[in-house]
Order: sequence, then C-alpha cells, then structure tokens
Amino acid sequence: MLPPAVIPVKLPGARYDIVISTGSLVHLGREMATREHRGKVMVVSHPQIFRLHGQLLQDSLEKAGFEVHLCLLPAGERYKTQRSLTKIYDAALEAGLERSSTLVAFGGGVVGDMAGFAASSWLRGIAFIQVPTSLLAMVDASIGGKTGINHPKGKNLIGAFHQPRLVWIDPLLLKTLPQRELRSAMAEVIKYGVIQAPDLFEFLEELPVLHRYSDFRAQDLHHILVRAAECKALVVQQDEQEKGLRAILNYGHTLGHALESLTQYRGYLHGEAVAVGMVAAAELACLSGRWSRGEADRQLRLIQRAKLPHQWPQNLPLASVLESLKADKKVKDGQVRFILPTQLGQVEITDQVTDQMIQHALETISV
Amino acid sequence: MLPPAVIPVKLPGARYDIVISTGSLVHLGREMATREHRGKVMVVSHPQIFRLHGQLLQDSLEKAGFEVHLCLLPAGERYKTQRSLTKIYDAALEAGLERSSTLVAFGGGVVGDMAGFAASSWLRGIAFIQVPTSLLAMVDASIGGKTGINHPKGKNLIGAFHQPRLVWIDPLLLKTLPQRELRSAMAEVIKYGVIQAPDLFEFLEELPVLHRYSDFRAQDLHHILVRAAECKALVVQQDEQEKGLRAILNYGHTLGHALESLTQYRGYLHGEAVAVGMVAAAELACLSGRWSRGEADRQLRLIQRAKLPHQWPQNLPLASVLESLKADKKVKDGQVRFILPTQLGQVEITDQVTDQMIQHALETISV
Repeated sequence: MLPPAVIPVKLPGARYDIVISTGSLVHLGREMATREHRGKVMVVSHPQIFRLHGQLLQDSLEKAGFEVHLCLLPAGERYKTQRSLTKIYDAALEAGLERSSTLVAFGGGVVGDMAGFAASSWLRGIAFIQVPTSLLAMVDASIGGKTGINHPKGKNLIGAFHQPRLVWIDPLLLKTLPQRELRSAMAEVIKYGVIQAPDLFEFLEELPVLHRYSDFRAQDLHHILVRAAECKALVVQQDEQEKGLRAILNYGHTLGHALESLTQYRGYLHGEAVAVGMVAAAELACLSGRWSRGEADRQLRLIQRAKLPHQWPQNLPLASVLESLKADKKVKDGQVRFILPTQLGQVEITDQVTDQMIQHALETISV
Repeated sequence: MLPPAVIPVKLPGARYDIVISTGSLVHLGREMATREHRGKVMVVSHPQIFRLHGQLLQDSLEKAGFEVHLCLLPAGERYKTQRSLTKIYDAALEAGLERSSTLVAFGGGVVGDMAGFAASSWLRGIAFIQVPTSLLAMVDASIGGKTGINHPKGKNLIGAFHQPRLVWIDPLLLKTLPQRELRSAMAEVIKYGVIQAPDLFEFLEELPVLHRYSDFRAQDLHHILVRAAECKALVVQQDEQEKGLRAILNYGHTLGHALESLTQYRGYLHGEAVAVGMVAAAELACLSGRWSRGEADRQLRLIQRAKLPHQWPQNLPLASVLESLKADKKVKDGQVRFILPTQLGQVEITDQVTDQMIQHALETISV
C-alpha cells in the first residue's frame, strides 16, 4: 500500500490540496466533512462513469451527512457547450443549491471544466471539488482552476479562473478508463517532461510500456501522477491567471487546438491532438535553430512508444489552419504565440513564427 | 463648474476609481489611454442610449487611438438573459477581442451587469469599464463588481464578482433619462440613507423636490451621487463578496426581488420594487419591535415624496411570495434573510422572520 501524497497549491486568494491516494474515493465524504463542507452537494458527472463508480461516491457523501443531488451530462468535448452549462444551472436551481453548498465534479476534463465554471458562476461562486476520473483530468485539467466551455467557433473562449477547494485523485479509477484515453493523457505527461521536468521525461523513457493501464506497476503510476501534479502546481503557483509563465503549459497546444477545432473535436482526443502539436512544435523549434534534432527525436520516440499520433493530416488546408490559429485566445495583438523547447526541461515563448515556417513544419510531419 | 470627485475603491485584488464629473463623457478615451488601456475596445450598450450619446463616446475613444467595436442589446431586465449574453460573446468573437482588450458598459444596470459578466468570462476575464447612463446604475449597480444575468426562474442567479477598472460617471447623461427611471433610482439613494447614512437621509428630506431631473440643482445632484458612491464603496471595501456586511445593501431587496419576479419583471422598475420592499421591511422591523414607528414613517414620507410606490399589490397569493423568497439566492440553509432597520443609519441582518410576520406585514401595506 502506497502512502497518500498531498501536494499543496498555494495561491494569493486560495489554498488547496491535491491528494493522490489509491482507493480513496470512499473516503471523500469524510474528508469533506473534516474540511468543513456542509449541507448540500451536487455531483456533476456523466452516465458511464457514474454507473461504474457513482454508488461508491454517493454512499461516501451520504454517510458523511451530505444531502446529495446529481446532474448527469453527456461526455465529450463536443458537449462542452452553453447547453450543458444551462443543464447544470437548471439542476442547481432544482436542487436548491445555496452559497454554502458544494459542487463535486466527478469525471474527466470536460465535466471538471463545465462543473467548475458552473460553480464559479452559480450565485456568483460556490465551492467545488475536483474528483477526476480520467488520467488527463488527473494530471492536468483538475488542477489550477481553469474552467469554461467552448464557443461554437473556438475552444474554451468562455470561462473563469475558479480554484477548486480540493483535488481528490484515486488512481484505482483508471482501471476502467478506455485505453485510448489513457494513451491520450500520456501526451500531457510527456509535455511536463519536455517543458520542465527532465527527470520525469527520463523516467518515462525507462518504463517498459506506457500505453496500457495493466502494464503499469502501481508505484510507477503513482510516481507519474505525483510528478505531474507537482509540475502543474508549480506553474500555477507562479502564474495563476496565465499572464506569463503559465503559457508554457500550452506547449503543443497551439497547433493541437487548431487540429481539434478543424476536425470538429471528433477526430482526435485532446491529448492526441496535443501529441501531434508537440511534434509540430518540435519541428518549429528545430527549424528555427532552438532545439537539437537529437532531443526532438527522443520526444518523437516517446510519443510513438505511447502509441500516440505524431503526423499532421494531409487534408487540412493551410489557410484554415492559419485562420484557426488566429481565432485562438492565446493570440496577443494579432500575433500567434508558440511555446518552443530549447532543451529538455526548458522552453521559450515566442511570437516570431511565420506562416511559412508553420507551412514547412506541417508539411514535414504530414502523413 | 463643480470640481470632479474621485472616490477610490480599494480591494484585495483590485483598486479602481469612481470618477464623478459633469460633462466628462468626451474625456473618457483620453483617460483610458492614460490608465494604460490599449488596442481594441468593445462598447456594449442599447440602441436608445447609444443614439442619444453614443457618438460622443465613440469619437472620444477613437480620438484616443482605440479600435472601437459595438454591441447593441435591447434594454430592460427581461433581456438580462443567456441569450443576450451569447450575443455579447458572438460580438466579442467577431471583433476579435483579446485578453488585452477592454469592454465598456455604456448603459443602465442591465447593460452593466451583462457586459461585466461577459468581461469576466470572455477568455476567462478581460478588463471592463462602467459608464453608467442611468441614475440607478450610477448610485448602485456600476460600483462593486457584481455582474450577472437572470435565470428564467430567478434573478441574478448566474454571475461573477468582477471589478471594473474604472467607473466613469457623467451626471449630464441623466438629462435624457426617463423621469420614471430617475424616481425609481431614488429608492436606492433613500436606502443608503436608512442603512448607513443619516446625513444623506436628512439631505434628501430637505430637498424641495426629488423626483424630477430639472428640479435638481447641479450641486445637489452631484452631492447625492458622491455620497451614494461613497456609501457603496465603503460597504464593498469591507465585504467584496457579500460574505457578511455587504448583505445590508439588500435592504428592501428581499421582498423587492420577489415582487419583481412575481410580476415577471414587467410591473415594476427595480427601484420601485425596492421602494415597496423597504416599506415592507420597515413594517417587519416595527412589528418585531426593532424600529420606531416615527422613523419608519419618515422613510415612508420620503418614498412618497419621491413618487415611488409604497403598497403591496393585492393580487399576489402569499404562497407564491413565500415560494419566491425561498428560491432567492440570499437564502442560507433554507432560511430567508431580511435586513431590518433598528434606527436611521443602522440595520440588522436576521433570519428570524416567520411566514406569519411576512403575511401580516404585506397585508398591512396592501393596496
């Protein structure tokens, strides 16, 4: 039995813990009571995950004395809409949620983002707790308080910075995660390795297999979760509202988002698009003389070993890609910003990437 | 010519000025440039107010070098909806607003609330400036960062605390305000007198007329605006997120909101409903032995002199009133909270008001 890891996140207006502990789902209710949550709790989740693990969670909350309400939403990026948000508001009204109530996000990143934004805006802000059930949400989305929904014309254009009161990670939940989603999330773990944690990158390189849950030793998975959470917490603490440093977390996301958007969020899982985006960013970094081909190739091999896509699809017209990049919210004064590695564990933020360089990079990594 | 008044609002995460200055609309662009706003500005307004004063504002912004975009929305509480909010988001996308852009709310409280919430949630938060055009917005809504929209089943259920960077008040704009709206807003001014500013209450008592713009001397109106802004700023500084003290600003609003909601936001202007709510709250305060009948009568006379409604309509079933109260977001642990005066300038927050007392009070003040 591995001891629980507790990673504190310390921000000017908020302080909370990320707790990583195997089999901890059944203890959440007790923990929430200890942390002075009271009264009504609304769990926002989606039907598949709730069918698998919902009863454990609900029992835990009820045993601790909470009045539990439920709001189930369809899963998937394409449901991260105003419409789903409205459903959460309607359920909150139905449940009679008050300012002292708590919202629990029990699902992947989409559920967490939507529930978090609903919590930030219901009665101008109520408490919420992240209980991520996917690897992607555990290592990334559940930490740091970015919440929001998509606009029909762009991802995450509408949202808020609203920190959770607690992030409660039970790695056992990954047992039922579809393998493709596990692989997809590994892209974000590799990302931390490249942008800030060479130790994590090398740890991943030495794992025999990194694309199947059943092949991970419990302590290796625990180590990955802890290092990823530490990486994310470190960045968020230094730049909660993405005014500078936090942008490095967008490594691979500039072209990744464009890819997701141009394929209507149907062709790629988020991490898969990020994997392709990282390969493209590596190409831009090599092209501009920032990064060595040798390290870029190590990244490529790791992405391949994680069975992640690493090629740009041929059927996307460059003009649409450029247009999509410019509609992205990371644009500043009309300039698209890229995060480019300079060496393992180091990146640079630049807006000095021309359309020609993008074209060249995408052609190089095209199928 | 009256000198401009500058009232600073100092909060943990924000600091901004309320500037009250006659004829100042044409200087806003220059002032924004001085305060380091740059690039794109989107003005959110409604057609009537923009036709009257929009050109002055637009010229001022353009002369100062801003790229100006416009989003016009229908006016009125019943348009404070998800639908209007979506229109602002769509216009923001169309204008290509970036994180460094500024949103200017140019209108009454409804425009300010919606534009403020849009600013809080567009790209997870951009700057916004309040340029209130109604007396109600000048003395209340534009100050303090409460933003939001209505849910079909309740007022202001969805929103955020998002402070403006500047509140820019030009009393000249009130010249074109419909008289009914001026009267309505006077209810909130009277409210400040009752809850925290006996000097303001007495100042109002001594004005010869307080329901027509043309009857105000410029210096009296200026004094009212300054004292109201000071009152609001004082409370907001002590309790930005309404965890305690700020609730006193809801004096008259508990039953006032119920009245607005039960009449589908069509029967009463906000301030008119608040006026009735203050008379009802005064009755509850007298009934429970908190307040003297003499001071409650002074409040009633002031409300009557402002030509504001002061009677509860007979056709609203008590059951609906109670149900509406309980759906309100000011409810805590199922208890409806009231703000009741104990003497001029002093109030008490209480949840010890029974349904019977409410019934009695409403019957007493019924038409």
